[in-house]
Amino acid sequence: MKKKYMILLSALSLASSTFAQTWIWYPGDYEIWLGNQMNNRRTERGAFFPPFWKTDSHYVVVEFSKQLNLSEPEEIFIAAEGKYNVKLDGKLQFGMPETMLLPAGKHNLNIKVWNQATPPTIYVKGKTVNSDSSWRVTYEDKEWIDESGKASDTSATIYMDAGCWNFDGATQRPSQFSLMREPQQPVTKSEQSEGGILYDFGKETFGFITLKNLSGKGKIEIYYGESPEEAKDKAYCETLDKLLLEPGQVTNLAIRSTSPLSNSENEYTLENSKAFRYVYVTHEPGVQIGEVSMQYEYLPEEYRGNFRCNDEELNRIWEVGAYTMHLTTREFFIDGIKRDRWVWSGDAIQSYLMNYYLFFDNESVKRTIWLLRGKDPVTSHSNTIMDYTFYWFLSVYDYYMYSGDRHFVNQLYPRMQTMMDYVLGRTNKNGMVEGMTGDWVFVDWADGYLDKKRRTLF
Amino acid sequence: MKKKYMILLSALSLASSTFAQTWIWYPGDYEIWLGNQMNNRRTERGAFFPPFWKTDSHYVVVEFSKQLNLSEPEEIFIAAEGKYNVKLDGKLQFGMPETMLLPAGKHNLNIKVWNQATPPTIYVKGKTVNSDSSWRVTYEDKEWIDESGKASDTSATIYMDAGCWNFDGATQRPSQFSLMREPQQPVTKSEQSEGGILYDFGKETFGFITLKNLSGKGKIEIYYGESPEEAKDKAYCETLDKLLLEPGQVTNLAIRSTSPLSNSENEYTLENSKAFRYVYVTHEPGVQIGEVSMQYEYLPEEYRGNFRCNDEELNRIWEVGAYTMHLTTREFFIDGIKRDRWVWSGDAIQSYLMNYYLFFDNESVKRTIWLLRGKDPVTSHSNTIMDYTFYWFLSVYDYYMYSGDRHFVNQLYPRMQTMMDYVLGRTNKNGMVEGMTGDWVFVDWADGYLDKKRRTLF
Repeated sequence: MKKKYMILLSALSLASSTFAQTWIWYPGDYEIWLGNQMNNRRTERGAFFPPFWKTDSHYVVVEFSKQLNLSEPEEIFIAAEGKYNVKLDGKLQFGMPETMLLPAGKHNLNIKVWNQATPPTIYVKGKTVNSDSSWRVTYEDKEWIDESGKASDTSATIYMDAGCWNFDGATQRPSQFSLMREPQQPVTKSEQSEGGILYDFGKETFGFITLKNLSGKGKIEIYYGESPEEAKDKAYCETLDKLLLEPGQVTNLAIRSTSPLSNSENEYTLENSKAFRYVYVTHEPGVQIGEVSMQYEYLPEEYRGNFRCNDEELNRIWEVGAYTMHLTTREFFIDGIKRDRWVWSGDAIQSYLMNYYLFFDNESVKRTIWLLRGKDPVTSHSNTIMDYTFYWFLSVYDYYMYSGDRHFVNQLYPRMQTMMDYVLGRTNKNGMVEGMTGDWVFVDWADGYLDKKRRTLF
Repeated sequence: MKKKYMILLSALSLASSTFAQTWIWYPGDYEIWLGNQMNNRRTERGAFFPPFWKTDSHYVVVEFSKQLNLSEPEEIFIAAEGKYNVKLDGKLQFGMPETMLLPAGKHNLNIKVWNQATPPTIYVKGKTVNSDSSWRVTYEDKEWIDESGKASDTSATIYMDAGCWNFDGATQRPSQFSLMREPQQPVTKSEQSEGGILYDFGKETFGFITLKNLSGKGKIEIYYGESPEEAKDKAYCETLDKLLLEPGQVTNLAIRSTSPLSNSENEYTLENSKAFRYVYVTHEPGVQIGEVSMQYEYLPEEYRGNFRCNDEELNRIWEVGAYTMHLTTREFFIDGIKRDRWVWSGDAIQSYLMNYYLFFDNESVKRTIWLLRGKDPVTSHSNTIMDYTFYWFLSVYDYYMYSGDRHFVNQLYPRMQTMMDYVLGRTNKNGMVEGMTGDWVFVDWADGYLDKKRRTLF
């Protein structure tokens, strides 16, 4: 019964996205681009730490098209991220029109966008003509004109349905997306005998440290920890920040980026988020810091699953689990908020299953599956790990079983095929899959009885 | 004899690039990115007109590495385009260091760069440690750490030699590259009876129109032509610009970009170049324009080939040909400066051959070959045209025969293989190549006896 209810919900949400206008893009491209922002936020003691697998990117030129049949003339509003053109029935319009009057009748509307830095996206709003997942997209329209002026045979062009999420307002540009923030204060603050102040935010949390009422000049160092011991271990703690305060501005010394203090409270908030419970702040004598707080960052989720029993310890375990699950449910399902902060297929498949119970947030599942697959050509297993490729296939199966979302599987199917081609190209002489040179085999990672030279069959 | 001389020249230029520091990147990536800038400058009557084939892009995360053997400690300067980290013998350094002291002895230096908008590039300058084509690059280093802390088996990682051109100074950032400019004046200026002024620049030329001593308010329209008739054909001329002058600023109405007038002479220069001899300028009554001139744009070339005979008409034909060849020798060899301004394989192969005689500019040949090939997966013939794919292969052969540059062919070889795989996947039942659905077959383009339904064998 529960399952039927969920499938109904999912069907409703799919249907609704077909009627309201929303920002659209090449399916998977926004997810891959956003994933690059996510995966490249890992730092290790102030050093930038990107993944070691291939980082894919979006198609930089994308054509969006829609066949129209209008009972009356209609004015549309057009916005795009990127340089764009608009064609009506094959005729290019001047410039990059923001509004356009469409005549009644049957027409072809094409919008082509170029954007190197962020994914090409469009937003069209009219009375009946609205950008949504029913628009077709391609990265090669092959629309040459032959010597007679006739448009080419385009039957070899592969069109997909446009991708979208929930950017339904004209000013909600997908490339500007960020999670929600909420200011939070430390629970305790204690001066340390060796200098510096240790702040306790009361529980493991995630966000951006804010320093208020800054004055003076000199270096500020911030060390993060899950325990007081870790935060105060300046030589070995996993994450840290080093700042230089000067009159009216702060320079983040790791990324060499200088920001002005905000006027009213001489305030500075770090650009990169961190995971912590404890924060240890030290500074040179010339520096004064009025207040240390944080901007908690989160993806809003509705808690649909619940657990309650007469054992308070079990209840507490469930609560901690649900909170941890929420912390790692962000732009994507990540392995953990503190160190990697990466999207790993083996971690994601566990999050998906917990998510179906706790949030039933299908959008986060789909984003994560797109990102983990990346683009063609396939040059390694998922995250370079052989077993993670198979988790990826299983996750698509699971998602379909939980959601009934056949459309997503259809859109993804060509990339499932090329991923499987990669796997089938790496079997041994018995036709079995085994770790080949360059593959990381994770079930074989820990010490044990398995042969680490990767001669074992699976 | 001539050929030997050329091969010697080429060998010298290859060798020199190995010793001097220069900006480096993943081979082909800068060329593809720069090609996107080039191919996306085409406009048709104020509309942006990108190509209809797949527009590839650079790898957004690239790792550069070099094995060092230093007889004494050495300080290096590091610059990068993108967010980067530096590892010495596997140990990450804090932040994005601009300088670094390398100890004497054998060491591994790794620099990893992320850049979505422009290609990841680096520049390293020391006494003996300098970035050049001897550095290794990869887009997936697969350097995970196993449970014992040991770096992974990376033998499956594919390394290439770094790509470079002539950006030898620390501030010569590759993404900031532009061709040379030279101010030029019209030869004549004539008021037209129907209003507006026709400017004649004396010959077919290419560049950016500059308007000086602008004042007032209103629209300005600029029409370009090879003949006076074309420039004055406001309804059908191929290229045009529409501007809105307001106090202190000009808005380019096609791209909706507003620029301030330069202070001294109330001057405005267009962002996009055009090809023309004649320029027809009209404006609303509230506008005053003091002077119309142009910034001629060109790639500096040394004329190595020459032709002279006792027939002045032949000499003149040669001069016009050489000038035209120079006009189309730009960031890449393009088809022509006026309409497409695109890099077409069938046009490029003719330019290469003329270039070997006129300029012997190997860098422009290599840039164009990289761009025309693009990235994997191959999803269509070169520029979608079947015969153009074969011209591309021929152009690599020609380049090798003229230059003896085996290193370039080695670097390109994996993409020659995947391009050939594409061709071999599209043969008919007799094993012959013929135009398949979606292929444009150019030898079949013009009217004639050939079957336009593409049943002909080639």
